[in-house]
Amino acid sequence: MNVAIIGYGNLGRGVEIALAQQPDMTGVGIFTRRDPKTLTSLGLPVYALDTLTEHDDIDVCILCGGSATDLIEQTPSIVRHFNVVDSFDTHAKIPEHFATVEKNANDSDHLAMISTGWDPGLFSVQRLIAQSILPNGDTHTFWGRGVSQGHSDAIRRIDGVKMGVQYTVPKNDALKTVRRGEGSTLTTRDKHSRICYVVLEEGADPETIRQSIITMPHYFDEYDTEVHFITEEEMRNEHMAMPHGGRVLRYGHTQADVSHQYEFSLQLSSNPQFTAAVNVACARAVYRAHQAGMRGCVTIFDLPLSYLSPLAPKELYRTIL
Amino acid sequence: MNVAIIGYGNLGRGVEIALAQQPDMTGVGIFTRRDPKTLTSLGLPVYALDTLTEHDDIDVCILCGGSATDLIEQTPSIVRHFNVVDSFDTHAKIPEHFATVEKNANDSDHLAMISTGWDPGLFSVQRLIAQSILPNGDTHTFWGRGVSQGHSDAIRRIDGVKMGVQYTVPKNDALKTVRRGEGSTLTTRDKHSRICYVVLEEGADPETIRQSIITMPHYFDEYDTEVHFITEEEMRNEHMAMPHGGRVLRYGHTQADVSHQYEFSLQLSSNPQFTAAVNVACARAVYRAHQAGMRGCVTIFDLPLSYLSPLAPKELYRTIL
Repeated sequence: MNVAIIGYGNLGRGVEIALAQQPDMTGVGIFTRRDPKTLTSLGLPVYALDTLTEHDDIDVCILCGGSATDLIEQTPSIVRHFNVVDSFDTHAKIPEHFATVEKNANDSDHLAMISTGWDPGLFSVQRLIAQSILPNGDTHTFWGRGVSQGHSDAIRRIDGVKMGVQYTVPKNDALKTVRRGEGSTLTTRDKHSRICYVVLEEGADPETIRQSIITMPHYFDEYDTEVHFITEEEMRNEHMAMPHGGRVLRYGHTQADVSHQYEFSLQLSSNPQFTAAVNVACARAVYRAHQAGMRGCVTIFDLPLSYLSPLAPKELYRTIL
Repeated sequence: MNVAIIGYGNLGRGVEIALAQQPDMTGVGIFTRRDPKTLTSLGLPVYALDTLTEHDDIDVCILCGGSATDLIEQTPSIVRHFNVVDSFDTHAKIPEHFATVEKNANDSDHLAMISTGWDPGLFSVQRLIAQSILPNGDTHTFWGRGVSQGHSDAIRRIDGVKMGVQYTVPKNDALKTVRRGEGSTLTTRDKHSRICYVVLEEGADPETIRQSIITMPHYFDEYDTEVHFITEEEMRNEHMAMPHGGRVLRYGHTQADVSHQYEFSLQLSSNPQFTAAVNVACARAVYRAHQAGMRGCVTIFDLPLSYLSPLAPKELYRTIL
């Protein structure tokens, strides 16, 4: 199964790493909008994106761009030529994205899986299973401890901030409340706090910056927010990794006094590497489903899970059922 | 969607309870080998099992007998007439059971899902996903704290034991070792201890009974086993519930120094009620898949997860993806 990597940021590099661990998959190349000569891969050949359709040995393309500007254009375009997987995560626009991708995939006899990764993706799978089994209950999602790219960007846009990283941190008390089955009214805000590490520009006033952060509408104003000022050296040594993770929890009842707790958690040393690993397994599923005759657009909800594995179903029944 | 319940022990009663929570499913009756007049349901009509094939309004039968003697006979037989779901859990015999059920299902144009529940079932789903995404890693399953029926039965067969219950308990140290990524050599024995509560017959010698339990081959001799002698009243007050649960954990690497922890856990106040709730969602999936044209035998690995939910795919994308 031959896989192409479209885009080579952290996620694209993660896909290159993940492909090397899969016994039945081969990376055929990285396709970039940059000048291919300026890009150093871990080993795969690098091509200009506009040569993509000249390659006739690609079974699935994994799209590694951002949702806002890249995927919204690239997925519908590339699915005209190849099967694709993307990790589109702008929730409000999923129906619209799905419709465009579906139309182009059907027109060209391809299959696309959109919005894979861990959330949306694995967390969605857990929410679906838990809710289907325990219709009488509440599902809660906690994110973190991990770096939020959007919130980090928001800090960095403030005048006087040289570097900034924001960690989303789940509140332990809220988690305990949910586990006791008493969390039904908790909001995302009640369940998370935000911790910011900031390197100031020379001469910037810390208190002014702190106020700009904690009062920033939507991003911080409604959250418990801590701001820590650190040196550039501390930032480079301690905050350049991209850990993340989170937890999906459903507390439900089958009878008034009979409760069940369904809990899933991820703790990831590298958010992009793990997201990439999910996308690679999903690329296998897309290839299998396309071979089985499926066309159009799907999500991880819509394919048999056995398609994610390199093992044949009977081998799965024997070893892990 | 009309569902019949085959067998009415704890699991069958759990199915009756779970069906009442599902908006799109109706229980049409309980079918028993006992005299129907001797059985008190929670509300559904009770029929003799040998009248099952006279009913023409059944979409799926949920088989609630035991693996050893009931399901091995019933699933292949009933699938000749109806779509079926069972929770067959004798692991070594799954391939043989699958083959018999598959043949009869294909011959009669029906669909069967075997070996559903939480293990095999939901735990299998987690093992499959985790292993597919992180091929470089170790998966560990912990069971408990919960009542093991087989081990409880083994205690009760000892002369001098009036009542007995055995809890399988995961060892916290082993769990910590696995979470640190250092658990690859741990066995089931290393990961669990066994705690027994026993009511003695009058005149029985506690030390003799304790020795009979802790030296019992296969069941206890290789485990850390505690035996507690209690009164019949304590047993009835504190040990008649059937709690269970457990945990699937995969610790894997995408690069040598980049690790990820995938963890799933269940904590169930009633093992049979939760197992029943899983089987009911799977019955919905079987009905959907049969409508979509699938025939033969499948497991939870082989159907799209969206089939578990009463919601249409687009509604799922909108609300929980």
